[in-house]
Amino acid sequence: ADSPSVDDLRTTADDPYRNEPSRHPALNVVSERPFNAETPVALLADHFITPNEVFFVRNHLPVPTLEGDGYEVQISGLGFQGPLNLSLNDLKTKFQKHTVTTTIQCAGNRRHAFNQVKSVKGLNWGNGAIGTAEWSGASLRDVLSYCGVYDERARLLKAKHVQFEGWDEDLSGCPYGASIPLEKAISEHGDVILAYEMNGQPLPRDHGFPLRVIIPGVVGARQVKWLRKVIISEEESQSFWQQNDYRVFSPSVDWDRVDWRKAPAIQEYPVQSAVCDPMDGSIVPPDQEDVTVKGYAWSGGGRAIIRVDVTIDGGVTWHEANLRCRDKRCHLRTDSSYEDASKAASEPAGDEEDDDEDDEVLAQEASDFTTRPVDKAWAWALWEAHIPVPQELRGRELEICCRAVDASYNVQPESVSAIWNLRGCLCNAWDR
Amino acid sequence: ADSPSVDDLRTTADDPYRNEPSRHPALNVVSERPFNAETPVALLADHFITPNEVFFVRNHLPVPTLEGDGYEVQISGLGFQGPLNLSLNDLKTKFQKHTVTTTIQCAGNRRHAFNQVKSVKGLNWGNGAIGTAEWSGASLRDVLSYCGVYDERARLLKAKHVQFEGWDEDLSGCPYGASIPLEKAISEHGDVILAYEMNGQPLPRDHGFPLRVIIPGVVGARQVKWLRKVIISEEESQSFWQQNDYRVFSPSVDWDRVDWRKAPAIQEYPVQSAVCDPMDGSIVPPDQEDVTVKGYAWSGGGRAIIRVDVTIDGGVTWHEANLRCRDKRCHLRTDSSYEDASKAASEPAGDEEDDDEDDEVLAQEASDFTTRPVDKAWAWALWEAHIPVPQELRGRELEICCRAVDASYNVQPESVSAIWNLRGCLCNAWDR
Ligand SMILES: [Mo]
Ligand SMILES: [Mo]
Repeated sequence: ADSPSVDDLRTTADDPYRNEPSRHPALNVVSERPFNAETPVALLADHFITPNEVFFVRNHLPVPTLEGDGYEVQISGLGFQGPLNLSLNDLKTKFQKHTVTTTIQCAGNRRHAFNQVKSVKGLNWGNGAIGTAEWSGASLRDVLSYCGVYDERARLLKAKHVQFEGWDEDLSGCPYGASIPLEKAISEHGDVILAYEMNGQPLPRDHGFPLRVIIPGVVGARQVKWLRKVIISEEESQSFWQQNDYRVFSPSVDWDRVDWRKAPAIQEYPVQSAVCDPMDGSIVPPDQEDVTVKGYAWSGGGRAIIRVDVTIDGGVTWHEANLRCRDKRCHLRTDSSYEDASKAASEPAGDEEDDDEDDEVLAQEASDFTTRPVDKAWAWALWEAHIPVPQELRGRELEICCRAVDASYNVQPESVSAIWNLRGCLCNAWDR
Repeated sequence: ADSPSVDDLRTTADDPYRNEPSRHPALNVVSERPFNAETPVALLADHFITPNEVFFVRNHLPVPTLEGDGYEVQISGLGFQGPLNLSLNDLKTKFQKHTVTTTIQCAGNRRHAFNQVKSVKGLNWGNGAIGTAEWSGASLRDVLSYCGVYDERARLLKAKHVQFEGWDEDLSGCPYGASIPLEKAISEHGDVILAYEMNGQPLPRDHGFPLRVIIPGVVGARQVKWLRKVIISEEESQSFWQQNDYRVFSPSVDWDRVDWRKAPAIQEYPVQSAVCDPMDGSIVPPDQEDVTVKGYAWSGGGRAIIRVDVTIDGGVTWHEANLRCRDKRCHLRTDSSYEDASKAASEPAGDEEDDDEDDEVLAQEASDFTTRPVDKAWAWALWEAHIPVPQELRGRELEICCRAVDASYNVQPESVSAIWNLRGCLCNAWDR
């Protein structure tokens, strides 16, 4: 009875996971250490904005314990005499506050479908490693411009990438790191922000408190949390996650033959969609004449979703879903409009839900998409289809399948096996 | 013997096709009036730059007869007191000359594959309605800026689109017309030009002499030839081709049910590839141990091709093709660098072919793609794969299939039937 239990050991001082935050019980845990969990899929399609408490968590390492007071991010690299430190307070006071509504998706979202074909390496994510939030903070473009890093100067310096390092680190002290092309960071259309708020609240610890980078249209893995360093460089991040992970190969490349240099680091996500409701295995009651199917659709690079097709008869008939977008609130906006939105959000609680619905645009015509600025649809489209169930399918388990089309008319591939890759990233085959 | 023959009738003064240019006999004619013809596919993969004489021709209407001397383009619309005329000479002398190497692809390229599934409306194009050229002219961004149409002002004016009208018109006098989002036209990364040269020569008549608009990364149908008017507007072009054509629907939408407003006008092309050599129906000699397969791959929006997979066994084994890009010459460049290139091109004829090869970059590693500026790979990748032929397949007709992946990791869909659409546009299923 003197020997410590496993639980005791886990709480001892040298356990790197001793200071994890508490989490909402509704999250579906995929791994405990590091903590990874997805939003219950049935919740996803009901809320254009995913609530903080149930937003999917993708941690590569233990969650660092950080204070907002005195927090500093270090900016350095090409063009810097020495590192420049900006405090969280500097970011909040010296720079305009911007808000961007953007969807974040893990490169491994829907990996379970790959595992059904042939085993892959990685967390066995279902369809819930995706979510949408309103992120607020300083624009990275503003911050870099303040530091003297802008278009012409960047060209002179041969600066091509922005590297990010987090405070989360492995046992050897190596931090999580990633990079993006500098052009994305300094473009006035990039909408990259150093975020200190998520849906109007300080960042939750699992989402990078007190500071993370938000990179609209780009895979989650580059949106470094607990941001410690920003480095302007000629080269991409040399981190494991940038160089030897998060890249996609053909199904014919196996672990013996993989040469990581041959594929680029994932940045923009391809077009994606999934069914959220009804869940797998649901049965249509024998007397039910139609079924309502709900889900999400999203594409990287700011490409709007222009169509979602749903079938319950294996693709013989496709039904076009109604899309719920919210384009008014999806673009980067500055502090003043944010204040307006906050005011609206702080109206009597009973009206809040309705306000929310009013803000959503039911896309009826193509012009609802094409009047958007080019490449700025950072947030997903939620969709809903009402499909008549033929007599012969009633009372049976339905095979529902969906697929989306984005503004560049890219479509999702049909079969999972055709895009199978050893690391199981970017599973965007038709969801069925 | 007094009655005129059909040929005589065709040359009478009221025949709108009486002044068509002469064409190279190697072109594969798809329709005579209007004239539409594709490049022989076997030629495509041999030349990074498609020669003018065999560049595919896509005419919607008779070719207008125009003179370069005194030619004017009219610019008007939001923000203009009255129309502003710029002569061809103005465009050549008041604005810097820019050159951009870009691939143009017809929305109907590969339509024949749709017809094999179920008949569609439109010209029955094979794989040759695509080509790459170096286009030179004035930057539309420069021209619009000269006219006072730039970012902030455009926002004030609520200007959202740039419409183009050609001198080609139907019997009722209605001209060909199209539009693109204004942001593409005024962005410093849009590389849109009003072109008066194609591969260093004045535009051939079939390609818009004396002036056309070149819109990198966008479908051919918007790149209006014989350019007559540029109109800044809040709305898209109201032309038939913008509103009731060149849009894509689900396979379940037929001509009785189509509502053209429900899909956006095609702008950026999705990822595409095709096999050029060996041709369909080729037999591998019984003693041949491997086969060399060549083709092209391209994606819209400036997204580079990062991988092409080729299979000869129905997708059991995929072979990665070698990509030949030419990224040094694909970006917009100004007059001085163009002069250098011209000088290189005018070296002794014997060396020309070699020079050409030297300029091409054999993409070996991911960094060959990712060091490019974001979204600027306007030209195709030509590719080549050397595939061992298993004993059992030798002496037989091979079923070769290819598919490409672009920089956003979008992939081509597997089956033609899944993307079948009534108008037969954007056929980018695996080519087999
Ligand atoms: Mo991820
Ligand atoms: Mo076209």
